[in-house]
Amino acid sequence: MKEFERFKKMFSPKTIAVIGASFNLKKWGFHILHNILSGGYKGKVFPVNVRGEDVLGLKGYKSIKEIEYPIDLAIIVVPREALFDVLKECVEKKVNAVFVVTAGFAELGEAGKKMQEDIRDFAIQNDLMLAGPNGEGIVNARIRLYAQMAIHQPKAGKLSMVSQSGNVGATMMQLADMSCYGFCKFISSGNEAVLKLPDYIDFFAQDDDTDTIVAYIEGIKDGKRLIQSLKNASMKKRVIVIKGGKTEGGLKAAQSHTGAMTSDTAIFEAAIKQTGAIYVDGLQELYDCAQILVREPLPKGNRVGILTVGGGWGVLAADACERYGLKIAQLKEETLKKLDTVMPPWWARNNPVDSAGGGKRKTMTYGVEVLMEAEEVDSVIVLGNALGVMSTAVMKKSPYYDQGLNLASAIIKDAEMEVVEVYDRLINTYKKPLILSTDAKHNAYEIKNEVILALEERGIPVFHSPERAAKALSYLTEYARRIERIREK
Amino acid sequence: MKEFERFKKMFSPKTIAVIGASFNLKKWGFHILHNILSGGYKGKVFPVNVRGEDVLGLKGYKSIKEIEYPIDLAIIVVPREALFDVLKECVEKKVNAVFVVTAGFAELGEAGKKMQEDIRDFAIQNDLMLAGPNGEGIVNARIRLYAQMAIHQPKAGKLSMVSQSGNVGATMMQLADMSCYGFCKFISSGNEAVLKLPDYIDFFAQDDDTDTIVAYIEGIKDGKRLIQSLKNASMKKRVIVIKGGKTEGGLKAAQSHTGAMTSDTAIFEAAIKQTGAIYVDGLQELYDCAQILVREPLPKGNRVGILTVGGGWGVLAADACERYGLKIAQLKEETLKKLDTVMPPWWARNNPVDSAGGGKRKTMTYGVEVLMEAEEVDSVIVLGNALGVMSTAVMKKSPYYDQGLNLASAIIKDAEMEVVEVYDRLINTYKKPLILSTDAKHNAYEIKNEVILALEERGIPVFHSPERAAKALSYLTEYARRIERIREK
Repeated sequence: MKEFERFKKMFSPKTIAVIGASFNLKKWGFHILHNILSGGYKGKVFPVNVRGEDVLGLKGYKSIKEIEYPIDLAIIVVPREALFDVLKECVEKKVNAVFVVTAGFAELGEAGKKMQEDIRDFAIQNDLMLAGPNGEGIVNARIRLYAQMAIHQPKAGKLSMVSQSGNVGATMMQLADMSCYGFCKFISSGNEAVLKLPDYIDFFAQDDDTDTIVAYIEGIKDGKRLIQSLKNASMKKRVIVIKGGKTEGGLKAAQSHTGAMTSDTAIFEAAIKQTGAIYVDGLQELYDCAQILVREPLPKGNRVGILTVGGGWGVLAADACERYGLKIAQLKEETLKKLDTVMPPWWARNNPVDSAGGGKRKTMTYGVEVLMEAEEVDSVIVLGNALGVMSTAVMKKSPYYDQGLNLASAIIKDAEMEVVEVYDRLINTYKKPLILSTDAKHNAYEIKNEVILALEERGIPVFHSPERAAKALSYLTEYARRIERIREK
Repeated sequence: MKEFERFKKMFSPKTIAVIGASFNLKKWGFHILHNILSGGYKGKVFPVNVRGEDVLGLKGYKSIKEIEYPIDLAIIVVPREALFDVLKECVEKKVNAVFVVTAGFAELGEAGKKMQEDIRDFAIQNDLMLAGPNGEGIVNARIRLYAQMAIHQPKAGKLSMVSQSGNVGATMMQLADMSCYGFCKFISSGNEAVLKLPDYIDFFAQDDDTDTIVAYIEGIKDGKRLIQSLKNASMKKRVIVIKGGKTEGGLKAAQSHTGAMTSDTAIFEAAIKQTGAIYVDGLQELYDCAQILVREPLPKGNRVGILTVGGGWGVLAADACERYGLKIAQLKEETLKKLDTVMPPWWARNNPVDSAGGGKRKTMTYGVEVLMEAEEVDSVIVLGNALGVMSTAVMKKSPYYDQGLNLASAIIKDAEMEVVEVYDRLINTYKKPLILSTDAKHNAYEIKNEVILALEERGIPVFHSPERAAKALSYLTEYARRIERIREK
């Protein structure tokens, strides 16, 4: 399939021309080239600018036509007035694909809209594969290609994203980087003169490196096409959709942002859900949801087991679970008996399983395994991991550190690191979601919490609050239920 | 008033006895004493334990009665069986107040409940001011007293909290520390055998150092008393209430946590709101709400002005504002004209005010001032501050750093630091809320973002996502409206 091969080459180019490359730090033509080079891209890069100047130690060209190699991807950052001529040269050069950063088209009203239509017509007539204009960049973390304005360079992962906003994409890449789940491919689709959001979804659906697809949508002209793409993609991958411009205020903002029009919000939401995609409200939910989707198995039902080292957190987690449609699992006597062996004598034999500041070394490992194993539990939330690592790090400042606190620190850290291997194994063994929320993640004391980092590097999501953990789990649970229903049809 | 003076002495003691003090790191009797000493408390501390052993370099006592000084606060961490005898000695010693950490009472069912009643009767008969049992600790950051199990030592601030959960309180202290707004007083009220949550609210309402009061509630026996306390407090201070145990699952968890019973959730919520207190859902909202309450002026209405450096964020912020009951202000021509002077030629002359990656140096200062000044705007949200500081910090790793990037870094940082003074002045001048959300806060690159830190040290809240900023602002706006209505009555 010709189209697929061209997309592949666009996202995994061996040669890139940056047209409008510059060493002027005020220009995006500098930042994009700089980010490509500093990101560690291993292919060939050719800067092109009107004077043919060398940039960042690379030989400069006056025109893409002068480059001695075939070009897989041309990134265009020239002024609006120069764009058309540059596109003509790209056609003559027979480039595989162009990504147009240049802005000032449909987002600026009627005159710009006309110019954008001209570009579209020209590209279609000449079979020029064109992304943008007004795009923020294109990323493929697998080959360390970070051809974008934003500075983020997430490591390689399995999540690919198409975004009608550059900064929403940038936020996601940064958060992915922080949570260690990484990125696969990213494209800021801009004004979508030619290539449209569903085109990228179609490509990601076929892309072997992509497991999870995220789409940030502000406006869609062809709703049917979008629904068809999402339906198709959802059968093969996990898909998350976030919509900007759902309210009157947001819609007006979206119109002046990408020149996009949107249809009725409620109808849109219902249609998206019928495709099997997850529909989230806002950036934080998007981030939380992505974190849980890229790794966790799908739960069979909505019964949650909670293990907590403190009462209040357990109460709030239980509240949040039920608020978001999950159930607090009723633990069987058999399960309670197993828990008795690691819980303190005074524990309440209830779910949430609350060690109330007590418990044994194995409470966080064997205790969690008991819940993972229990047939009456579909998912497990654990609250309060890695607090010891944090507190021993704080203790280092204590004048009493050498009087025994140092020894305790080593023991505590050792015990807490144990969970990393165990949780990883439990998820693989029992094929149930296991997610964490802990205060230790907040990191008020500039302490690198090694346990949290190791968990996140394994892809085990660690949340900042019980509510966020519960909400993310509720999305996963609802998604599992919906996908199963769609597949049964 | 005798009661008030005793409370004052309990929270600002000159002398503390820690009964059950130990150098065994597995015991809370170690951690509480250690936290008092390492926190920098300047008063006199006396460890008491059965053998009269010295602990952490302090002279030990076998009984509180042997201490040569009057005791303002006795903290009791002895086993449950020894508690009654220790309380008797406290009465003989005529201590001002006791804080009982010892657990194993009403939270453990009928037998424990009976023992707790005995303690209550004994305390009341002997006029013993008793906090707890099953309390996590007591804090007064103004005198650097951190007498608690958790390790957090927030700096001095104006927010005081009473919590029926120790770890919910600990979470709040940690988050306050991270956002630099600090803490005033904290008490974990435990099982409330004698002193109850409304007693602490009454005290905080009269406490000159406290501006904002937070109460985490799991169960209340005397609803009328609570409502009266909240009503009274809300007339003098800003009050936030969070409730644990709102769902069936949460309620069951709360019962085994503090032995508390709760009334109907919807009635409870409505009653709380009528007192003028803010009622939040969950830990994250509590934290966000506290951040905005401790500093920001109350808005006169719900019309929001948004300034953003990127389109998608503006769209999502506008959506979130409208979702939470705020309005996107319709900017007057006069305001738009002023904005023209700092916005790029292509800006959409709309609210959100979107500089679309362009703008001048003064966009984030003068542009924000224009919105703050505009009579059609009640509150201002700014999106995207301090991104430059983050990106220049990342650039330091670039091989091209010495080829001009170093100079650019200095200029960018200088420009971005400017907002700190300006925003502080704007809040004071225009008496309108000004809040921020920025990606730079996420700090994926372990960069200390000096602009963010300086803003937070000034008490200007910086949020992680547009939705959280909008939601927090909606709470403040709704609170302002409600308080005005109550005062008019």
